[in-house]
Amino acid sequence: MSLADWRRRIDEIDRKLVELLNERSKCALEIGKLKQQANLPLYQPDREREVLENAEHNNGGPLTDAAIRRLFERIIDEARSAERIAMHKDSDGKADAKGGSSDS
Amino acid sequence: MSLADWRRRIDEIDRKLVELLNERSKCALEIGKLKQQANLPLYQPDREREVLENAEHNNGGPLTDAAIRRLFERIIDEARSAERIAMHKDSDGKADAKGGSSDS
Repeated sequence: MSLADWRRRIDEIDRKLVELLNERSKCALEIGKLKQQANLPLYQPDREREVLENAEHNNGGPLTDAAIRRLFERIIDEARSAERIAMHKDSDGKADAKGGSSDS
Repeated sequence: MSLADWRRRIDEIDRKLVELLNERSKCALEIGKLKQQANLPLYQPDREREVLENAEHNNGGPLTDAAIRRLFERIIDEARSAERIAMHKDSDGKADAKGGSSDS
């Protein structure tokens, strides 16, 4: 396979990654709503630890466990930001989840 | 759906993410080998810009374009680290891609 072939394969994987990351974000937003209704804190360190442990456990390489951990720390951060933006949107009806900014 | 149901769905998505991220990393390693054979630089800013633009272009939300960009910047960073570790391994036969460390 040529460099161009491998890049096309990466582009295909990236399309799936964007889709899955957004699907994950939708789930996180639903969780955010449930947490808000139940007056639970947005930040739940035990669950975050579990997510990171699961990711490392499922890692067959070639990415190192440290790389997988860094990637999932970012994924969790962005999920939390999306939850925050959505809550803000619910409370003042102004912020736009697609264009909002994040503090994490 | 309950909080536990949504979390199970996230766990399922995360398993797919770990798989895709590793598949992507394998492609990047193949690209690294081809670059090395052709004496091309590891860092190719035009291609990185293209990857980020594609990711934003494919983003249908709810993640913001800025969030997608941050996530893919991390993904690209880790791919480059894996390429570096693999090159190091090829040259001295010691480093282990699964357990190696990264400087990016």
